Amino acid sequence: MRLVELVEKIGISYSGEDCEIVGINTLRDAKEDELSFLDNPKYLKDLGQTKAAAVLVSKKYESAVPKDSIALVDDEPYLKLAFASKFFAPEVMKKEGNEPKFGKNCNIGSNVSFGKDVVVGDRVTIMPGCFIGDDVEIGDDTVIYPNVTIYHQCKVGSKCIIHSGTVIGSDGYGFAHTKDGKHIKLYQLGNVVIEDDVEIGSNCSIDRGALKSTVIKEGVKIDNLVHIAHNCEIGEHSLITGQVGISGSTKLGRNVVMGGQSGTAGHLEIGPFATIAARGGVTKSIPGNRVYAGFPLMEHKKWLKLNAMLSKFLRKSDTIVK
Amino acid sequence: MRLVELVEKIGISYSGEDCEIVGINTLRDAKEDELSFLDNPKYLKDLGQTKAAAVLVSKKYESAVPKDSIALVDDEPYLKLAFASKFFAPEVMKKEGNEPKFGKNCNIGSNVSFGKDVVVGDRVTIMPGCFIGDDVEIGDDTVIYPNVTIYHQCKVGSKCIIHSGTVIGSDGYGFAHTKDGKHIKLYQLGNVVIEDDVEIGSNCSIDRGALKSTVIKEGVKIDNLVHIAHNCEIGEHSLITGQVGISGSTKLGRNVVMGGQSGTAGHLEIGPFATIAARGGVTKSIPGNRVYAGFPLMEHKKWLKLNAMLSKFLRKSDTIVK
Amino acid sequence: MRLVELVEKIGISYSGEDCEIVGINTLRDAKEDELSFLDNPKYLKDLGQTKAAAVLVSKKYESAVPKDSIALVDDEPYLKLAFASKFFAPEVMKKEGNEPKFGKNCNIGSNVSFGKDVVVGDRVTIMPGCFIGDDVEIGDDTVIYPNVTIYHQCKVGSKCIIHSGTVIGSDGYGFAHTKDGKHIKLYQLGNVVIEDDVEIGSNCSIDRGALKSTVIKEGVKIDNLVHIAHNCEIGEHSLITGQVGISGSTKLGRNVVMGGQSGTAGHLEIGPFATIAARGGVTKSIPGNRVYAGFPLMEHKKWLKLNAMLSKFLRKSDTIVK
Repeated sequence: MRLVELVEKIGISYSGEDCEIVGINTLRDAKEDELSFLDNPKYLKDLGQTKAAAVLVSKKYESAVPKDSIALVDDEPYLKLAFASKFFAPEVMKKEGNEPKFGKNCNIGSNVSFGKDVVVGDRVTIMPGCFIGDDVEIGDDTVIYPNVTIYHQCKVGSKCIIHSGTVIGSDGYGFAHTKDGKHIKLYQLGNVVIEDDVEIGSNCSIDRGALKSTVIKEGVKIDNLVHIAHNCEIGEHSLITGQVGISGSTKLGRNVVMGGQSGTAGHLEIGPFATIAARGGVTKSIPGNRVYAGFPLMEHKKWLKLNAMLSKFLRKSDTIVK
Repeated sequence: MRLVELVEKIGISYSGEDCEIVGINTLRDAKEDELSFLDNPKYLKDLGQTKAAAVLVSKKYESAVPKDSIALVDDEPYLKLAFASKFFAPEVMKKEGNEPKFGKNCNIGSNVSFGKDVVVGDRVTIMPGCFIGDDVEIGDDTVIYPNVTIYHQCKVGSKCIIHSGTVIGSDGYGFAHTKDGKHIKLYQLGNVVIEDDVEIGSNCSIDRGALKSTVIKEGVKIDNLVHIAHNCEIGEHSLITGQVGISGSTKLGRNVVMGGQSGTAGHLEIGPFATIAARGGVTKSIPGNRVYAGFPLMEHKKWLKLNAMLSKFLRKSDTIVK
Repeated sequence: MRLVELVEKIGISYSGEDCEIVGINTLRDAKEDELSFLDNPKYLKDLGQTKAAAVLVSKKYESAVPKDSIALVDDEPYLKLAFASKFFAPEVMKKEGNEPKFGKNCNIGSNVSFGKDVVVGDRVTIMPGCFIGDDVEIGDDTVIYPNVTIYHQCKVGSKCIIHSGTVIGSDGYGFAHTKDGKHIKLYQLGNVVIEDDVEIGSNCSIDRGALKSTVIKEGVKIDNLVHIAHNCEIGEHSLITGQVGISGSTKLGRNVVMGGQSGTAGHLEIGPFATIAARGGVTKSIPGNRVYAGFPLMEHKKWLKLNAMLSKFLRKSDTIVK
């Protein structure tokens, strides 16, 4: 889309040349034909280095936009980004494209629906009622149980197992907010990448990245009813048990263990070989190789001690009451 | 159904005229051809005003039944209501009715199943594997991703987005209990009404109302794996994040924010612009415009303080131990 | 499979006769043609009594293997069991077998997929988009709402109701761990047995047993988004409300009530008529007929007291601060 046309649609004016904009990206990764934005001042250092064709910024940071980029100045750059994102979303179901391409000895059940340009490896089983969206790739020997949904552009590795009801690639929960309290969708333009040997239980939701990929690395095993939000990265061989929720952009190192019903806030890093006990709630980035528990989170042995203290406190008060 | 026939089926006798009963309703809203009930004495004030044709009541409250209504006296009026509810439930799949009626330029995927008398607006996308039940209405420009289920009689507004695996209109969790510990289903006779501009993530469950509607108001955005129980009302532009659970008959005002894995008890009111932090558990009705956290719930700043105190307590005890 | 062949595949050698192995079972229940294992020394008493054809054990316990069984000695018997389990798993979709057999007056929706050798009772409703796997049995008068998945070999009783998106019989979360941090799947060879008059809400996940059955007993009512792990037994007429998670091998007695978002650890027993308040986390076996709350769990009245004490403590500190 031409920049002149885009700014008109989102209600911005600028001075400068027109150019073709083909997508949206972060300041750091934007190419010369992409739109970017500065929402959080912590990315100001990236602004000076960006190659983006144009950058949505507030007046305050206009001067920091590199001379080869066009500054699109607005009071609410993130809101304008949301309006713009809609124009870079692919059509919901591609009308044109190739029929799915299957490897050898695949086993495809009844009532499976495929989008366009799907590529399926050898010896893949896709059971009845699944939906495999446009441009999805599925590696060899993977088994997909009934009624799984894989959204467009997601990639599933080899020797994976995905259980029924699981949804791969639904939109991340991303909205910009207007001054009068409405929420404008940031179209989610990334995808989900699932590496090899991953098993995912039933009725899980793994959201696509906002701009890039949500990544589930090799050997990860996920239990049922797990929520993994957009832009997360789950390290190799991590164990994510039932009903865990991982908020957006959080990264787990390798071999992290998350106990049942535990959760994390967003934008955190959890070090490799960390264990979060059941119900633990991670609110800060934490080093690996330790066991944590509680909400707010603390080291597991502290949590045990805190509970022992509270218990003692309670017993003492019983005595006093009597 | 004739009242004489109904009471025979549920094992009650009464003195009075026969009449046609067409449905079940609350004391307050029952019309002259509906059955109602008094289970909880807090609704006694409604009993005197009811227009219901007949009211299930215990002996104690028989005299409070208006003279134009028939008192159906029983020790266990709620249990008898449950038995009666079955006879007012629609057939699970209508055998007769019209084929779905589509507006202009709809995009309907493969393997979509429709019930009877469905009405779909213009430019609606319904992706593969969805089920759209009897008498469902869907507004213009709405997108329904694959493998979504919408039960009979539910209404979805315009410009909504519903992600895969989500279930709209499953039965609320309503049972009457027998003296020997069994649970008798209250057939759920209401529906779900989703207003315009609502987005619902993947694998959510939104139950139909017991007698009326569960309502998701305009502009609400719901993340993944959220449970909304029967009779709830979610106020305009509220944000309900991942794995939240909202118990039956709870009402949220507009622009309420519920953090990840938070929850509420039933029959509460949460004021407009209230924010519940992640994991907060709401056990009482609360005023709006404040931030809450913890379980039991408290103001967020108190919760921070409590945690600081416990942390200090723990450190001090470390010192003593040493 | 011949034992000689099996041990070669899993990398063990043994001295003794060859024999046919038809399955895997616990020490206690293994028959003369089954393979068993000793992983946890607490089952040592069962080892002396086992009838298993062969037993995977560590060197230390080799001498305790009965003389009619063959000791398969390995440093990591559980890991070897995992490798072996793969060879006893049924094919994912049976290629041969009978078409489904329906009783009288069934009502089967469009886009329903059946495996082989399915047996369906009288007056059963199966709505569109469901998958009913190989060898599944469904009792009379049961209603299965759209997009439900029932894996192979599971049994559903009479007069059950299963709501949309629910998955019955997905694999339990069972893995053996290698020394370098990988996880090897224990193929889940059991099933799920749902007795009569059970209702299950939408988007629930009920995993199949590892070797035997996960059992949901008569009259149990389950709400939405509930996770029941492998080998659990849910006692008659228990009430399991929204977003509850029950970990593997935990047994609930009859008429247990679990409040919203509550959970249990694995391998516990919860006595009959116990009530766990919302958010309660059960970490030890508990007697029945009491009300519990909190995490860690305590009696509900203690939990109320603890909260009152903390609240007082907080108020007092407010006064001091002022």
